[in-house]
Amino acid sequence: MANLVESPANITDKRSARKAENRIAIVEAAESLILEGGYGALNAEALAERAGVSRRTIFNHFASVDDVLVTRMNQYFNRIFEECDFTISGENASMEAEMLSIARKVFMSNTLEEYIAPFAHLLYALEMDSPAKFEEYSHVILERTYDIFLERYLAAYPDLPYLRVAVFASNLAETIGEGVYYYLTRAEEMTVKVAAEAPEGTHPEALAIEAMRQCVLEALDYLGRLVQGEFAS
Amino acid sequence: MANLVESPANITDKRSARKAENRIAIVEAAESLILEGGYGALNAEALAERAGVSRRTIFNHFASVDDVLVTRMNQYFNRIFEECDFTISGENASMEAEMLSIARKVFMSNTLEEYIAPFAHLLYALEMDSPAKFEEYSHVILERTYDIFLERYLAAYPDLPYLRVAVFASNLAETIGEGVYYYLTRAEEMTVKVAAEAPEGTHPEALAIEAMRQCVLEALDYLGRLVQGEFAS
Repeated sequence: MANLVESPANITDKRSARKAENRIAIVEAAESLILEGGYGALNAEALAERAGVSRRTIFNHFASVDDVLVTRMNQYFNRIFEECDFTISGENASMEAEMLSIARKVFMSNTLEEYIAPFAHLLYALEMDSPAKFEEYSHVILERTYDIFLERYLAAYPDLPYLRVAVFASNLAETIGEGVYYYLTRAEEMTVKVAAEAPEGTHPEALAIEAMRQCVLEALDYLGRLVQGEFAS
Repeated sequence: MANLVESPANITDKRSARKAENRIAIVEAAESLILEGGYGALNAEALAERAGVSRRTIFNHFASVDDVLVTRMNQYFNRIFEECDFTISGENASMEAEMLSIARKVFMSNTLEEYIAPFAHLLYALEMDSPAKFEEYSHVILERTYDIFLERYLAAYPDLPYLRVAVFASNLAETIGEGVYYYLTRAEEMTVKVAAEAPEGTHPEALAIEAMRQCVLEALDYLGRLVQGEFAS
């Protein structure tokens, strides 16, 4: 599992260190429970046992069991954008082509397997047992992605009309969301397709990640072809 | 106010007719209260007085005061899509250009002033007093718009890849949403700009509608230029 929080070794005070260790153990336990048994497997008893802490310790750190999950998802989400380099390369003639190129780089990089895929799988675990929560949290994530795109691109292209940047930021966020959702709802079928072209013995997790990559890149490629005028009338 | 429901004259039974009349009076009263005083002005007492019915009658028809508002918004929303002609004109070389042309026609037509503008103003009344409700309902509306676009276009273009139709349907819904939101958050400034170019004495409501039209058409024009390849790299 990815190391998403600062190492407790940086904390000199022993009691603080233990607190931090417990907190890490709790969020990691929540992730492993959900990945094994879905959202329904997440409850205080199972969490306490898996993390090796008392129920009371859990609720000293978190308002609820759901709060543990949201914390984990937010750690992944924040890390995705920490890893993401929004520097304008200058290789692209337009803001649109530049934004697309940055998005493609992210899905070609290790950020996908380290942070985006675990994040998406945690999020999708909600869909099985609690579609309304999945819907709500997906929406929050799309909105936050849009806000980050908009902020970075308004800063990088201060002379462009606001509506142009806002519409494209929203279109790009939606396109990535469609690609991820397309994968999540067809994960098995997509993974089988990828497996057929992968070297024998490729780890199932690597196949799943490759399948997600292909779905998102297909969605981004479509937006790229749109930007290139391929569907002009 | 637009007539959004079937006329009670069609209902032969007198008691049913009165019930239907009351229901119409209640939803119209909710609309006028909100347009005058914002979402905060909507409560059972004011609603009963404005509609000329008892509180009890309101709750015979509706689960809550919010339910009255949601009913009114849904009436507008459904009417927008009843008015909307999704017939493929064949004048456009691509699904994308065709979808855009249909959306432009809607915002050039009376559907804007009759249904979209009152709907948007009711929705925006939520933003002042209850931003979370506004956010939630806006999201529901975008999702429903997307679902309708997707369904109609998958039916009209059965041979296109699903992801292409899904991504563009979502991009178009978001673009319209951005245009409407751009107007709602800058209504005064936009209306003043429109007023400067309108004949003197133009009704303020007509100016507001023209301002909303211009904002949405600007957002759609941007998407149109994108489709035409104007921002190709």
